[in-house]
Amino acid sequence: MDFAYDTTTEQLRERLLRFMDEHVYPAEPVAQRQLAEAADPWARPAVLAELKAEARRQGLWNLFLPDDEHGAGLTNLQYAPLAEITGRSPHLAPEALNCAAPDTGNMEVLAMFGTEEQKRRWLRPLLDGEIRSAFCMTEPEVASSDATNIATRIERDGDSYVVNGRKWWSSGAMNPDCAIFIVMGKTDPDAERHRQQAMILVPRDTPGVRVERGMHVFGYTDASHGGHAEIVFDDVRVPAGNLIAGEGEGFAIAQARLGPGRIHHCMRLIGIAERALELMCRRAVGRVAFGGPIARQGVVQEWIAESRVRIEQARLLVLKTAWLMDTVGNKGAHTEIQAIKIATPLMAEWVLDKAIQAHGAGGVSQDFPLAELWASARTLRLADGPDEVHRMSLAKRELKRYL
Amino acid sequence: MDFAYDTTTEQLRERLLRFMDEHVYPAEPVAQRQLAEAADPWARPAVLAELKAEARRQGLWNLFLPDDEHGAGLTNLQYAPLAEITGRSPHLAPEALNCAAPDTGNMEVLAMFGTEEQKRRWLRPLLDGEIRSAFCMTEPEVASSDATNIATRIERDGDSYVVNGRKWWSSGAMNPDCAIFIVMGKTDPDAERHRQQAMILVPRDTPGVRVERGMHVFGYTDASHGGHAEIVFDDVRVPAGNLIAGEGEGFAIAQARLGPGRIHHCMRLIGIAERALELMCRRAVGRVAFGGPIARQGVVQEWIAESRVRIEQARLLVLKTAWLMDTVGNKGAHTEIQAIKIATPLMAEWVLDKAIQAHGAGGVSQDFPLAELWASARTLRLADGPDEVHRMSLAKRELKRYL
Amino acid sequence: MDFAYDTTTEQLRERLLRFMDEHVYPAEPVAQRQLAEAADPWARPAVLAELKAEARRQGLWNLFLPDDEHGAGLTNLQYAPLAEITGRSPHLAPEALNCAAPDTGNMEVLAMFGTEEQKRRWLRPLLDGEIRSAFCMTEPEVASSDATNIATRIERDGDSYVVNGRKWWSSGAMNPDCAIFIVMGKTDPDAERHRQQAMILVPRDTPGVRVERGMHVFGYTDASHGGHAEIVFDDVRVPAGNLIAGEGEGFAIAQARLGPGRIHHCMRLIGIAERALELMCRRAVGRVAFGGPIARQGVVQEWIAESRVRIEQARLLVLKTAWLMDTVGNKGAHTEIQAIKIATPLMAEWVLDKAIQAHGAGGVSQDFPLAELWASARTLRLADGPDEVHRMSLAKRELKRYL
Amino acid sequence: MDFAYDTTTEQLRERLLRFMDEHVYPAEPVAQRQLAEAADPWARPAVLAELKAEARRQGLWNLFLPDDEHGAGLTNLQYAPLAEITGRSPHLAPEALNCAAPDTGNMEVLAMFGTEEQKRRWLRPLLDGEIRSAFCMTEPEVASSDATNIATRIERDGDSYVVNGRKWWSSGAMNPDCAIFIVMGKTDPDAERHRQQAMILVPRDTPGVRVERGMHVFGYTDASHGGHAEIVFDDVRVPAGNLIAGEGEGFAIAQARLGPGRIHHCMRLIGIAERALELMCRRAVGRVAFGGPIARQGVVQEWIAESRVRIEQARLLVLKTAWLMDTVGNKGAHTEIQAIKIATPLMAEWVLDKAIQAHGAGGVSQDFPLAELWASARTLRLADGPDEVHRMSLAKRELKRYL
Repeated sequence: MDFAYDTTTEQLRERLLRFMDEHVYPAEPVAQRQLAEAADPWARPAVLAELKAEARRQGLWNLFLPDDEHGAGLTNLQYAPLAEITGRSPHLAPEALNCAAPDTGNMEVLAMFGTEEQKRRWLRPLLDGEIRSAFCMTEPEVASSDATNIATRIERDGDSYVVNGRKWWSSGAMNPDCAIFIVMGKTDPDAERHRQQAMILVPRDTPGVRVERGMHVFGYTDASHGGHAEIVFDDVRVPAGNLIAGEGEGFAIAQARLGPGRIHHCMRLIGIAERALELMCRRAVGRVAFGGPIARQGVVQEWIAESRVRIEQARLLVLKTAWLMDTVGNKGAHTEIQAIKIATPLMAEWVLDKAIQAHGAGGVSQDFPLAELWASARTLRLADGPDEVHRMSLAKRELKRYL
Repeated sequence: MDFAYDTTTEQLRERLLRFMDEHVYPAEPVAQRQLAEAADPWARPAVLAELKAEARRQGLWNLFLPDDEHGAGLTNLQYAPLAEITGRSPHLAPEALNCAAPDTGNMEVLAMFGTEEQKRRWLRPLLDGEIRSAFCMTEPEVASSDATNIATRIERDGDSYVVNGRKWWSSGAMNPDCAIFIVMGKTDPDAERHRQQAMILVPRDTPGVRVERGMHVFGYTDASHGGHAEIVFDDVRVPAGNLIAGEGEGFAIAQARLGPGRIHHCMRLIGIAERALELMCRRAVGRVAFGGPIARQGVVQEWIAESRVRIEQARLLVLKTAWLMDTVGNKGAHTEIQAIKIATPLMAEWVLDKAIQAHGAGGVSQDFPLAELWASARTLRLADGPDEVHRMSLAKRELKRYL
Repeated sequence: MDFAYDTTTEQLRERLLRFMDEHVYPAEPVAQRQLAEAADPWARPAVLAELKAEARRQGLWNLFLPDDEHGAGLTNLQYAPLAEITGRSPHLAPEALNCAAPDTGNMEVLAMFGTEEQKRRWLRPLLDGEIRSAFCMTEPEVASSDATNIATRIERDGDSYVVNGRKWWSSGAMNPDCAIFIVMGKTDPDAERHRQQAMILVPRDTPGVRVERGMHVFGYTDASHGGHAEIVFDDVRVPAGNLIAGEGEGFAIAQARLGPGRIHHCMRLIGIAERALELMCRRAVGRVAFGGPIARQGVVQEWIAESRVRIEQARLLVLKTAWLMDTVGNKGAHTEIQAIKIATPLMAEWVLDKAIQAHGAGGVSQDFPLAELWASARTLRLADGPDEVHRMSLAKRELKRYL
Repeated sequence: MDFAYDTTTEQLRERLLRFMDEHVYPAEPVAQRQLAEAADPWARPAVLAELKAEARRQGLWNLFLPDDEHGAGLTNLQYAPLAEITGRSPHLAPEALNCAAPDTGNMEVLAMFGTEEQKRRWLRPLLDGEIRSAFCMTEPEVASSDATNIATRIERDGDSYVVNGRKWWSSGAMNPDCAIFIVMGKTDPDAERHRQQAMILVPRDTPGVRVERGMHVFGYTDASHGGHAEIVFDDVRVPAGNLIAGEGEGFAIAQARLGPGRIHHCMRLIGIAERALELMCRRAVGRVAFGGPIARQGVVQEWIAESRVRIEQARLLVLKTAWLMDTVGNKGAHTEIQAIKIATPLMAEWVLDKAIQAHGAGGVSQDFPLAELWASARTLRLADGPDEVHRMSLAKRELKRYL
C-alpha cells in the first residue's frame, strides 16, 4: 500500500499545475468577458482556442485516453489526479486539454468499438479538438436509469438505419461545434433484456434531427458543457455503417463507457471542491465583519475544517476506485463506482454551500463561480440515475453476502 | 390557547383559495408562455394585469396593510395565512393581490412615516398597483447586516438632498414599472450609532441614478420579483421634502419595516413548501420505476412524511411570531423573528431539494418550478444577513439569562 | 388563534414552577445520594415520599387525568404545559405529582373502561400513589408495532382467564411498589384483525408470573421509571372479572390509551430539552477555555440558537396536537400524533447531544444528567414502534389525497 | 499509488482472521456469561487468559509495537488493518493480542523513553501481559485539551519525587491487574510552555494513591477497558528513578504517544462499524415486518449503502494517515491525524445508530453489543479533546496558506 503518486503522474501534475497557473487561471476573466459580449449564448469564448493550442503544444492533450495509439496511455489512477486539477477551472481546463465530457466517453467508445472508417471520420477530428460530440441516452418519458426502458427505435431499412425517438439531457448538443451524436436506441425490443439496444452515429445535420431546446439546470444553460439538449429524431436515416459494434451491443458499450466517466466526473468535483475551499479561505481572511476577519469565527472554521476532512476522504475513495478499475476491471469495482457516485457530489455540494454562505449574497450571484458550480454538483446527484437508485443497488449487493 | 383561525381569516382564506383555483393557477401556464415570448427579459406577463383587476374587484387587495385607512386592517396573525396561500404561486399571486415585496414594506413605511404629500405622490399609486418600487439598503463593499456600516451619503444642500453611493440587491428595481426607490444612507456619520441614517425617496428617473445590472441568484434573474439591481447614485439631487420622517430616523424606520416583512417572506415560503410537497406527492403517485409508482418506495415516503412534519412546525412558529408581534410588538417578538428567519428557509430548502430529487433530472430544469423556488429559498438564508449572524445574536440573548 | 395559555393553565403553571423551585430541584441531590446508598438497585429514593405528600397537599396531584371525578379535569391542552415542567426533573417530578408513566395510561384505562370493582381494587390505590403498575404489551419475538402480531394468549377457563406468553419492555414492572400489570393478549386469534385482543389485570404476585430481568437502555436500568421488565406468564390464572371491558376490546383500549401518552412523553421531552439547554448555557458561561468562557465560541452559540429554534417549533406542534385531541379527537389528530412522535425525540436527542459536547468528557458521565436523558430520548425513537414505521404511515395518509 | 496490502500484512490478516473465527468469536458468549456471574464488576472474564495464551502461541502478540526488539516490527500502515480486525470484537480481541489501550501507548513510551531499569521492571511484564497499566493525564478542574492547564505537581524531594493532584478518565485504572500508572504533571510551572511537564511512573499500590471511582459513559463502566478512574494523588512519593526521560519532557512524550494511538483507535472504530453493518444486514434479512424481511425496505437499504460508503472513506483516510506517519512522521501527518479524529467517531456513531434502529428496542439493550459500542464511539468525540477543538486547529492550519 502506497499513497504516493507515481513518477509519471507527478511529472504530469507539475506540468499541468504550471499550465493552470500560466494559462488557464489568467484566461478565466478573459473568457467571462468574451462570453458576456457574445451574441450567441452557446458560443465558446475565443480564448479557448488559444488554450487548446497551447495545451497541445505542451503535450497536455487527450490525457484521458488509456489507448496509447490515440491517447496518452495513462491508467485511470494516473489520469485521475490530472482530472482533479482540471476541475479547479471546470469551464475551461477540461476543454483546453481536450478532456471534456461527453467527448471523452464518446472517443473511448470509438477507440474501443469503432470501425476504421468511423475512427477516421469521427474519432480523428474529435482527437484533434476540431469538432465536439454529444451522447443521446436519456429520454423524457421513461425512467432511464433502467436501460431496458429506452423507447427510441433504430430500425434497419436496406443499407440504412432509421432512428425515431425523443431524447433530452443530451449534453454537448447545443455547442455550435457539435457535429456528431452517439444515439442509444433499440434495434430489437424482443431480444433478451440487455441485447435489445444498439448505439449509432448520427451527424447533427442529418435531416429529421431537431434540436428543440436546451434544458436548464437551476437557472443555468450549462453552455460551457455544450448545454443539455432535448432532441427529436424523426425518421432520421443514416448509413448502416454508422452502427457501432453491432445490433444488441448497446448495453455492453454503455457499461464500458460508464466507469471511466464516473472517475472523471468525481475527480473534477474534487477539484471544484478544492477551488471552493480556497475561495472560502480567501474570503474568510479578507472579509471583515464584527470587528475582525470572518476567519476568526468558529462557525467558519468548522466549515473549513469539515470541508478539508470530507474532500480528503472522497478523493481517496475515487483514487482507490480508479486503481480497482485498473487492476480488477469495471465489474470488480462495481461497489466503489457506485459509492463515488453517491459520495462525491454530496460532498462537493456541501463544501460549495458553505463557501457560498461565507460569501454572503455575492455567493449566489454571477460575481463568483460558486452558485453555478453548486448547480452542477447538485445535478450530478441525478445524472446517471438518482443517488437513491445507486444506494438501493449497492445495498442489495451488500445484503447478498448474508442471504 | 386556540389553534383555529378566526372568522375573518377563515372567510378570507376561502375567498382567496377560490381565487387561486379560478384565476391564479390557470394563469400560470399563460404567464409562462407570455414570458417566453416577451422581448424584454424584465417585462411582467400581460395576464398579471387581468389578475390584479380581478383581485381588486373581489376585494382581495392590499390585504397586507394593517392600516385600515389604506389597507385591509388585518392583524399580522390574520394576514399570515393569506400570505401562505399566495406563496403557492409565488410569481403571480402576491403581485396579483398587490401584496408583493418590496412594495409591501415600502407602502408600510409611507403609511406610517410619510408626509401627506409623500403619500399622495407615491403611496397612492403603489396602493393602486400603478407603479412598483424598490428598497435600496445593501451595499457591495460592506457587511450590511450591520446598519452602521452603510457608506451611502445623503447630504443636505439648500432645498435638496444629494445622494451618493452604490447599492446592490435592490430588489424590484429592474421592473419596468418601478418608479420610486427608498434609499437608506447616512445623513450624519458622526451621530450616535443608530441616529446616523435616514431614508429618502428617489424617483428612478432622477439624473445621476444608474441602474447598472441585475444580480443573479443561481442562474435566475428573479425578474418576477423585479430583479435585484446594482445601482449607482452619483450626485443624485432630490427635493428636501423627499426625506422620510427626518434625519437620523433611518434605523428606526428599518426596524419597524423588518418584522412584518419577515412574517410575509416566511409564510410565503411555507406556501412554497406546501406546493413542493404537493408536486412531490403527485410525482410519486404518477411516476413508475422498478415496477410500481415511486410512492411505494420507502425513501420517498420518508421525504414526504418528514416534509409534512417540518412544514407544520415551521408554520406554527411563524404564526406564533405574528401573534407576538400583534400582542407585544416587534421588540417582544425579537427572538421569534430571528428564529423564523433561521428555520423557515432551511425547511423550505430541504423540502424543495427532496421534491427535486423525486422529479429526476426534470426537477432541476425549467419544466418544473422547483429549481427556481429552491434558489429563492436558498437565497433567503443570506437575505437580511446570513443565518449565522442571526443565530449568534439569538444565542447571545439566550445566554444573557445566565450571566 | 391565540398562543397564550388560559387562566387555569397559567395559575397551575405558577404553582407548579414554585413547587419545582421549592421542593423538586432541592430534592435532586438528596435523591441521588439516597439512590447511591440504596441496597436494592430498584428502590425509589425516600425523598420521593415527601415530595408526593407535599404535592398532594398543594393539590398538584393526578393533574393528568381529564376525568374530574378522579382527576383534575384538565384538557390535554391544559395539562401539556404542566407535563413539560415536570420533564425538567424527569426522575422525580412526574412521580411526585402521581403523573408518571405507565401509571397515567393505566389509570386512564381503568377510569374509562374499568368496572366499579376494578376501580375500587386498583384505580383507587393508584390514584392515591400507594401502588405502581406496569403495562405489558411488547413481545420479544414479534414486531409489536403491529398489534395483530401479539402471541400472548388469554383463554377463558371456567370463572378464570389463563394467561400464557412472554413480554418485554414492560415499563414499571421492576419497581418494588409495582402491584398490578395490565396485560395485552389474544382472546380470539380467529376474530377480525382488531377484535382478537383483550386486556386483563394481573396482580404481580399471581402464581406463574416470572419477572425475569430488567432490560437496559444503553447502560442504564431506567430504575427511576420502574425499569423495563422481561416477564413470562406461565399458566397464570386470574378471575374472569379481571378482564377489562370485554373480549375483543383490547385494540380499542390501546388506541384510546395512545394519544394522551404521546402528548405526555413529548411534553416531558420538551422539558428535558429546556433543562439541557439551560445546562448548556450555564456551562458555556462558566467554563473557560482558550482564554475565555466557551460561550464566546461561535460553534457553541450555534448550538444554543439552534436548540432554541428547534425546541420552540416542537413545543408548538405538541400543543397543537393536544388542542386537536381536545377538539376533534384522537382520530382527527392522527397525523399530528405521529408527527410529534417523529419530531420530538429527534429534537431532544439533538439538543442533548450538543449539551453533552459542551460539557466535555463529564457530559457522558454520571456527573451530569445529560447522558441518561439522552439515552431515554434516543430510546423514544424506538418506543411504540420505530420512527420509520410512523413516517411510512404518515406518508401514506399524505399520499392518499392524490390517489 | 497502490491500494493493496503488502505481503506481510496480508499474511498477518489471514492468520488473525482465522484466530478471530476459531477463538475470539466463540469466546464472546463465554465471556459474557463469565462477566454476568462475576462477583467483582471490574473482573476480566477467565476466557481471556486462554485467548491470550493462544494468541501468544500463534505469534499474534504485541503486534502494535514497531520496535522489533520488543514488538513485531510492523509499520503503522502494516499494523492498522490488524487493529481494524480486532475492533470487530473490541472487548476481547485487542486484549487477547496484548494490543489494548492504554497499555499500547504506555509500552511505546517505555520502549522509546524508558531506562533499562524501567523497562525491566514495567515494560517486561506489560509485554508479557502479566500486568496492566493506566495513563493519568486528564484532570477534572481544567480543560485538558490544553496541556499547559495541567495542575498536578511532580516535585523533587531528595531522592524522590512527590506527586500531588487529581486525575479523572484514567482509563485502565479500575482493572484489578492494573499495577502501574504513567502520570503527567508539572515539574516546573515557570518553564517555557512546553517544558513544564514531566511523566512519572507511579505503582498503583503506592501510599497516597486513592482510586476514588470509575467514571461512567452512558451508563456503562467500560470495565472491559479497565474503566475510567478518578484518582487522587496525595503526597505520593516515588523514587527519582521513576521519572521518564527527564523533567520538562512530558509534553514531548505526550506528542510522541499521540499519533499511533489515534490510528489504533480509529482502525478499531472501523472494525466496530463493520461489525455493526454486518449485524444490521443480518437483522435486515432475518427480521420480518409488514409482510417481508426488513431488508426489502428502502430506508433500511439506504442505511446499509450509506454505511458502506462512509466506512470505505474513513478507512482509506486512516490508512493514508498511517502511511504518512511512516513516511513523513507525526508532524507531517498533523492535519490527517486530526482529520481521522474528527471523521471516524462520527462515522462509527452514525453506522451504529442505524444498526440500533434496525434492531428495534432490542438494539438499545444488553441483548446486542450495539448500544455499548455506540457509547464508546460517542465518547471518542470527546476523548483527547472535543472534535470542535480539533476542527478549530485544523482550520487554522488550512487558513495559514492564505495569510
